[in-house]
Amino acid sequence: MTIRVPEGFRLGGMHSGVKRNATREDLSLVVSDLPAVAAGVYTSNLVFAAPVALDRSRTPGSAFRAVAINSGNANACTGERGRKDAHEMARLAAAACGAEAEQALVLSTGIIGEFLPIEKIRAGLATLAGKLGRDEASLIAAARGMMTTDTVHKLSGRSLSLAGRTIHIAGMCKGAAMIAPRMGTMLGLVLTDAPLSPAAAQEALSAVIDDTFNCISIDGHMSTNDTVLLLANGAAGGDSLEDLDFDAFQTALHEVCGELARAIPADGEGAKHLVSIEVAGCATREAARKIARTVADSALVKTAIAGADPNWGRIVSAAGYADVPFDPEKVELHVNGFLLYQHAAPATFDADAVSKSIRDHRDTRIELNFAEGNERIHFWTTDLTEEYVRLNADYHT
Amino acid sequence: MTIRVPEGFRLGGMHSGVKRNATREDLSLVVSDLPAVAAGVYTSNLVFAAPVALDRSRTPGSAFRAVAINSGNANACTGERGRKDAHEMARLAAAACGAEAEQALVLSTGIIGEFLPIEKIRAGLATLAGKLGRDEASLIAAARGMMTTDTVHKLSGRSLSLAGRTIHIAGMCKGAAMIAPRMGTMLGLVLTDAPLSPAAAQEALSAVIDDTFNCISIDGHMSTNDTVLLLANGAAGGDSLEDLDFDAFQTALHEVCGELARAIPADGEGAKHLVSIEVAGCATREAARKIARTVADSALVKTAIAGADPNWGRIVSAAGYADVPFDPEKVELHVNGFLLYQHAAPATFDADAVSKSIRDHRDTRIELNFAEGNERIHFWTTDLTEEYVRLNADYHT
Repeated sequence: MTIRVPEGFRLGGMHSGVKRNATREDLSLVVSDLPAVAAGVYTSNLVFAAPVALDRSRTPGSAFRAVAINSGNANACTGERGRKDAHEMARLAAAACGAEAEQALVLSTGIIGEFLPIEKIRAGLATLAGKLGRDEASLIAAARGMMTTDTVHKLSGRSLSLAGRTIHIAGMCKGAAMIAPRMGTMLGLVLTDAPLSPAAAQEALSAVIDDTFNCISIDGHMSTNDTVLLLANGAAGGDSLEDLDFDAFQTALHEVCGELARAIPADGEGAKHLVSIEVAGCATREAARKIARTVADSALVKTAIAGADPNWGRIVSAAGYADVPFDPEKVELHVNGFLLYQHAAPATFDADAVSKSIRDHRDTRIELNFAEGNERIHFWTTDLTEEYVRLNADYHT
Repeated sequence: MTIRVPEGFRLGGMHSGVKRNATREDLSLVVSDLPAVAAGVYTSNLVFAAPVALDRSRTPGSAFRAVAINSGNANACTGERGRKDAHEMARLAAAACGAEAEQALVLSTGIIGEFLPIEKIRAGLATLAGKLGRDEASLIAAARGMMTTDTVHKLSGRSLSLAGRTIHIAGMCKGAAMIAPRMGTMLGLVLTDAPLSPAAAQEALSAVIDDTFNCISIDGHMSTNDTVLLLANGAAGGDSLEDLDFDAFQTALHEVCGELARAIPADGEGAKHLVSIEVAGCATREAARKIARTVADSALVKTAIAGADPNWGRIVSAAGYADVPFDPEKVELHVNGFLLYQHAAPATFDADAVSKSIRDHRDTRIELNFAEGNERIHFWTTDLTEEYVRLNADYHT
């Protein structure tokens, strides 16, 4: 599927030297030729990065012209100097398109606790400003500029006709590890040419995040930099979206964010399986999410899936410590469609067939049903492999 | 240190056939010649095993004569048949020393969701009954009978003189994985010849658990079978311990449980480092515990230590999502005595020296200081290695 860059946006990505490896993009710039409304959702980590502080103070808002993104350095835990660097990076991004300092936002990801090489970013943004495009190569380069240990870039888009005008949505994100977002993930950027007020943009983004980026976990470690931004520049024309049009826009935004969110565990560090966890029959949606997250974050569940081991006791016991009340006699567990557990006792099943079904497919489906209510959630995670450990024992030194 | 079996207890362990490997003990029996008081602390997992249900219904109480323990099978998630098997195992243990069915307790550990091979346990307990001893070999055999993937048996003991009589305490436990106890760990058994009422035994045990077995985590996965039992048979003579004597007993019990608890992460599956996490300056002890547990359960912190990587941003960011309010500007972090982070910014330190200190020592010491109050906790965990993943991708099938 070709993803169309929404009207009025130009973008690009390049290697500026933040990362040592010269074949890896590490800097992106997105410019809106029209002033854009911006909404954001951010990490709820108490230890949040300087770019999060800056963006949070400016969104929701309007008149934004640029977003600068770097990978290879998170500008987190960097104190006063980190705050100055984030402001300088925003000022440079704005200057690159002739805008005022406060008309830009910044996103950073990478190692925590090292100062941003601001001179490399200054030179890089000056170069990038002359190379921005609206073609697919420019879109991909921008998405690659936010990658850390991701093995593929992550893009999603939709086009829809609303009251005679065509509206485009294009989103990008990155993942790979330190992924357990509670409020957007590290990092996502969604562009649209739809006309939206700041309040409507924030409402639309906040509403879909809960079901998309807040329903994934790779390693249970919430980042300092989690941010998803939505930029809406209105280039599609017409008045602000309302009522049915707004609903249609929000549905498309939900699909884009869902695809981006799932792309993160699908490309999780060292992952051999993308694991879908469907929890149903709960009293509240938050209860369902808590159970799903607890199962998703269990190292024992994740290693069992890596080993194609139908060790369902690990799944049921993880649910049992999720701090959500339920009747253990009424829990039902299916894995890849096989019924494994029911009436508080093991079901009769062919362990070899279940194991083969896990081994032979990249997708593993866990379904947990409770008898406490009608709320459900769909959560996504990865298995845990030796490769994940190797990558993370090695990242820094 | 030689550990003395408390007066009035006899014990032993053997291979009965629950485990396939005939060189591994899988069944233990402890008999008290005098009726003993018993106290217990148990998993708070909603999905708890049949032996937990049985023991919880009988403790605190008195007149206990036997504890039967098996490894290789947890008798968890086994429904009505599992409950019957646990009762039958208790009856067999009591019969082995001529006692009534309700005078016994049972402990099981191993795979979840398979039925107990009760005939093997019946034959084994009949054999064991004739072989019980009070020597060190018998004590070690009993401790080995509760091992699963543990590489060493875990024992601790103290002897103390109280008002002219000598009191002995001997404890054993097992660990290795599925270790994140919130109420005792899977499994611990402490014997004493001290005279204690059921209420006093429960009080002493509950008081020390919080600081010992509830301060460790290997993989954040709370077991279905966590149990620590204290048996006190009064064979040391005299009236029940009170006041200063009780305090002295409790101090010794605390030391025994602390040694046993630390022995579990020290022998964690695949672990190359025993990690001590000292969190100080918190408003409450529970706040300190939450932060310590969140750091302990971070796969990114654990893999960094496995790789001797002074990647302190992972530690600080884990503290930040522990759901405990604190001022990030006032956090201080030391690793192995090196100051790494202070005033919300990186300290100046020699990364190679820190890395070398982690690489060259089995013990890693993380100290996190906050400015919120005077409460502290000392928590213990392991690193996360490729070997842990290998072991747990392989355990079942």
